[in-house]
Amino acid sequence: MTLPDLSMDAARAALRGIEGVAVDTEQDTYARVVWNVIAEPGDGAAGALISAIGPVEALRLAATPSDDDWSAARERWAPRLRPDAVRGALDGARRSRARLVVPGDPAWPSRVDDLGVHAPVALWVRGRTEGQDAPSVAIVGARAATPYGEGVTADLSAELGGSGVSIVSGAAYGIDGAAHRAALSAGARTVAFLAGGVDRAYPRGHEGLLERIADTGAVWSETPCGSSPTKWRFLSRNRLIAAMADAVVVVEAGWRSGSLNTAAHAATLGRALGAVPGPITSAASAGCHRILREYGGVCVTSAEDVREMIGCSPEPEPQACAASIGGEGRTDDTTRLFDALSTRVARGVDDIARRSGLSAAQVQTHLGLAHLEGRAVREEDGAWRAVRG
Amino acid sequence: MTLPDLSMDAARAALRGIEGVAVDTEQDTYARVVWNVIAEPGDGAAGALISAIGPVEALRLAATPSDDDWSAARERWAPRLRPDAVRGALDGARRSRARLVVPGDPAWPSRVDDLGVHAPVALWVRGRTEGQDAPSVAIVGARAATPYGEGVTADLSAELGGSGVSIVSGAAYGIDGAAHRAALSAGARTVAFLAGGVDRAYPRGHEGLLERIADTGAVWSETPCGSSPTKWRFLSRNRLIAAMADAVVVVEAGWRSGSLNTAAHAATLGRALGAVPGPITSAASAGCHRILREYGGVCVTSAEDVREMIGCSPEPEPQACAASIGGEGRTDDTTRLFDALSTRVARGVDDIARRSGLSAAQVQTHLGLAHLEGRAVREEDGAWRAVRG
Repeated sequence: MTLPDLSMDAARAALRGIEGVAVDTEQDTYARVVWNVIAEPGDGAAGALISAIGPVEALRLAATPSDDDWSAARERWAPRLRPDAVRGALDGARRSRARLVVPGDPAWPSRVDDLGVHAPVALWVRGRTEGQDAPSVAIVGARAATPYGEGVTADLSAELGGSGVSIVSGAAYGIDGAAHRAALSAGARTVAFLAGGVDRAYPRGHEGLLERIADTGAVWSETPCGSSPTKWRFLSRNRLIAAMADAVVVVEAGWRSGSLNTAAHAATLGRALGAVPGPITSAASAGCHRILREYGGVCVTSAEDVREMIGCSPEPEPQACAASIGGEGRTDDTTRLFDALSTRVARGVDDIARRSGLSAAQVQTHLGLAHLEGRAVREEDGAWRAVRG
Repeated sequence: MTLPDLSMDAARAALRGIEGVAVDTEQDTYARVVWNVIAEPGDGAAGALISAIGPVEALRLAATPSDDDWSAARERWAPRLRPDAVRGALDGARRSRARLVVPGDPAWPSRVDDLGVHAPVALWVRGRTEGQDAPSVAIVGARAATPYGEGVTADLSAELGGSGVSIVSGAAYGIDGAAHRAALSAGARTVAFLAGGVDRAYPRGHEGLLERIADTGAVWSETPCGSSPTKWRFLSRNRLIAAMADAVVVVEAGWRSGSLNTAAHAATLGRALGAVPGPITSAASAGCHRILREYGGVCVTSAEDVREMIGCSPEPEPQACAASIGGEGRTDDTTRLFDALSTRVARGVDDIARRSGLSAAQVQTHLGLAHLEGRAVREEDGAWRAVRG
């Protein structure tokens, strides 16, 4: 266990060639890189310590054996406190030209601060960081997606992307990949969060897709370059996908899918949460139905539904079924009138009143209106017929 | 406009041969039959007047021209106040052996009293009225159902029916018919509510089905025998389906389906409301998704979900995803441990600590537990391997 030299000069030297490092904050930035190597994503003790005394002092406290509140965490960090591990991570970043982003940097995505002590201590990114203030929707789901799920994903992503919404996802096979690809095809900004380092394409088969995402959007990770995507890091990564979006939409997910974890993070963070339903006979939709039932998710059936969730709906939702719910207005009398009219046989007002359960005066009034609308005609003998159509 | 003779003798004579009439209440019962003929279903003025002064006095007031609060309603009732119409309805009931059920009768389904002034003034029934206290679920939906919808309906209805739940529906083609048929096949009680008189099979093609329902369950209507099923009466009938059930489940419904009207009544009455999701590409599920989005309906994917809605679940719902949501318990450490273990290469405790981000002491503890569970083995040199599986 060795604490690296944290002097300004040493920090500056260590960070040389790393993109995105601001002048005169190298000490803090370097300390964050060390923290990035020694603490696993979402380590709340590290987050609390750093926010209390800053990353440099926090590191000194972490490296000093002592019988205090941090001794348990210290035992966890100590095995990784090795200068060669830090050097390795920085070498990987230089090789892959990953940019380092720390809090205070204009490129820092402020949405992740909602994670509190579980926010990342530093982020690595390949691609472009501008445009982060645009509305942003995470579209995620099962790797084992069906053609239905991939088709729905492509439609949602392309339509939302086309209307200026950034599409966030996790670059996995299945739903994630379909979301990124459709956004790219629509010329929209799309952003991927990886569980391992940004220098490692994961999954391998999405290497080309990740390159294309980085060309116009961004590929992010909170784990240092060289890190492998472990199960724990996938789960931690999901909290960043939820945090980075204004809404999370799960398109397909099995009963125990990792997407439920992303959904749970969205709910915890107060992000809008939706799920696309599917046949109840499809195992690939079981997790989505669970989100609707157990997580209070919104039932998403169109891009318009999603825009409404994030407050980007172009027009207010009409009060669709007021008439059929409320029950006693003009619509109901009209229904009764037409129940009592025939298109074939003309009927007198008294007959219509008896058949409809309306008074003769009401029948006269509504017949007059229906006549004006061309929906009823009066025969020569004064009897009325409905007009077909 | 003629008020029929409402004396006890005249009432007794008029009701002769009608099944279900209790001795010594014939006057009130007869007055209700007259109301049943002159007021359309759900007429709130009729309901209010009857509950205020009883059906006989209410009828006298309705037949006496006067410039009071009831004059508008009176004009509505007057065209139908004809003794021959009342006689016709009673003749129809005698011919079809329909039973008359009025409030106070043991066979009166007390759930409909939740409708207040919109409760029926009288009901007609063919079949058996016992067993009404059993849990009851309405399964309704589109006439233009898909094979998916009919299949799901049959499964839900048979499984719920098989566990002692009565299945209520509207005897229409499509979902309604599938619900009744599956309940009958499962030997369960099923109940149909018609929009027209119980002496008229509607739809015609369900005449045999309605006979079978009446054999073991019941076919109800609030409209007099001989009444045709008008659009208004379908809408009014829907409130009875909702009222008669502890929960309403819509399996398939188009965007403007009448089932949304039943769902709205369920919501108004405080009945549990659920909808079965389907592909968002299926127009036959659009109304169901609307119920999930706009009406706060529960997402129903199984009979078990429905039993839970009506409080008949055999076992409490487990707290399914606590671990993946909560995030910091033993499960997470175990995840990290196994992320750091290999099934092929044995690793020392320090190496595992570094890889997992756990302290050496934590690694020892969790390796011990994993060893006991047979999930990790210790090689002779003290290094550890995960067991495949």
